[in-house]
This record gives sequence, structure tokens and C-alpha cells, in this order.
Amino acid sequence: MSISAKWLNKVKWDEHGLVPVIAQEAGSNDVLMFAWMNREALAKTVELGEAVYWSRSRKKLWHKGEESGHVQKVLEVRLDCDEDVVLLKVEQAGGIACHTGRHSCFFQKFEGSADKGDWQAIDPILKDPDSIYK
Amino acid sequence: MSISAKWLNKVKWDEHGLVPVIAQEAGSNDVLMFAWMNREALAKTVELGEAVYWSRSRKKLWHKGEESGHVQKVLEVRLDCDEDVVLLKVEQAGGIACHTGRHSCFFQKFEGSADKGDWQAIDPILKDPDSIYK
Repeated sequence: MSISAKWLNKVKWDEHGLVPVIAQEAGSNDVLMFAWMNREALAKTVELGEAVYWSRSRKKLWHKGEESGHVQKVLEVRLDCDEDVVLLKVEQAGGIACHTGRHSCFFQKFEGSADKGDWQAIDPILKDPDSIYK
Repeated sequence: MSISAKWLNKVKWDEHGLVPVIAQEAGSNDVLMFAWMNREALAKTVELGEAVYWSRSRKKLWHKGEESGHVQKVLEVRLDCDEDVVLLKVEQAGGIACHTGRHSCFFQKFEGSADKGDWQAIDPILKDPDSIYK
């Protein structure tokens, strides 16, 4: 069972046993989403070659795309200098990472001044979420 | 004082009053680093047009590059669908974001199998850290 593998010990898991994870699209280098993994999720991600996160709201493993079909094929797994953040390079099935039907979860851009600015949703919805989650 | 600005209320600050922040290089789209901001740090980042983080270890605001000169000029600030993660698009002074003297903090790549793999530092040191931090 790879959950006891030594390389998993190098990761500095936080007080909840989690590590922040950035998913970046190979090729475009777009940042698609941000999520969390526990030890089991990271072990499964490497075993499976597909992103498996830890859902903090549902408190269970979340194989990304299990409902939507928008799985993430993992091409590369990286760790930062402090060993407490993971970066995945992925191929995003359907080109849609966000549950809103957008390419990336980071579709809200700050516009304006520090005093009076606001967030604007600027990226298009590629697919109606109602047709993604049946 | 922009710390009371309405757009800051849209961010879902965590139980410590922080939000995770990804810094991505404009142009290359490389993910450079990951850090945290509190309300004041995000307000200052937008006011100043340069990345100001919250150092969890030093428990104070950290104007990135204040010692190294490796400031990050902020071209774009984005918020994700859940409004609990910020993405910055930056111009990285010196092309070096990492305190190890590397371009990006994510220089360790997982290589091998889930059972016997390990992390390998694969990106070059561009500048000796001793000459960055005097």
C-alpha cells in the first residue's frame, strides 16, 4: 500500500493532515483550480495518474471528474521549497475545471481602485452546469 | 483607508483571517509561489500594485522583495469560484521568486512510482541565495 511510502513523509502536512494543491493545465499553463489533499489523496493521485483531492466540505476523497467526467490526467507532480504546497500539471478533460462550467475557477477579476473596485466575472461559461451534473 | 472597502468582504477569509494566494508569472504563466494574505495585505497589494503577503511564521506583513529586491509587480488579481483563493498575475523582478535563488518555488518534481518514487530538485539555481540576502 503506497500510503506508507517514504516520499509522502517529505510533505509537511498541516494541522488537519492536509496540503494545498494547485492544478495547472499543461500546455497553456493556466491555473485551473485550487484544492486540498490528505496523504491518501496524494498517494492515490500518483497511483492512478488522475487527480484525487480531499473534499473539506464533504469530508471524503474526491476523484475529480467522478460526476462531471472532467477528470484531470496528472502529467507532473511538484512540491515547493517549503514542502508544504503541491503543484499538479494536468490535462483537463473537456477543458472545464470549474463547477460553474468555466475553464478555470479563477474567472473573477478585480477591476477598479483599492477604494472602489470590485470583482467581475470575465471568463465565459463553456457548458451549462445543469448539463454537466445530472 | 481601503481596508474597509466592500470588495474585500467578498473574500471568504479562513478561521485565521487569511486567504491562500497563488502568484503566477504573466507571459510564461509559470506558477512562481504560494503564500497567504490577510485583509490588510490584499488591500495593500492592490493599492501599491506590488505583492504584499502575510508571513505566518513572522506574523507580520511581508512586502515581497523587501530584502531581496525581487518584488512582484501585480498586473491582475483574480478570485476563484468559491471566493476563498486569490490568484495574482505578476511581473517577477530578477526572474527569481524563490528564496533558494530559483525562478519558481516548485522546483522539486516527483519521479518514480507510487511505491518507490521520490522528489528531485530539477530546476537550476539562478543566483546564490547568499548574494541575494546580505
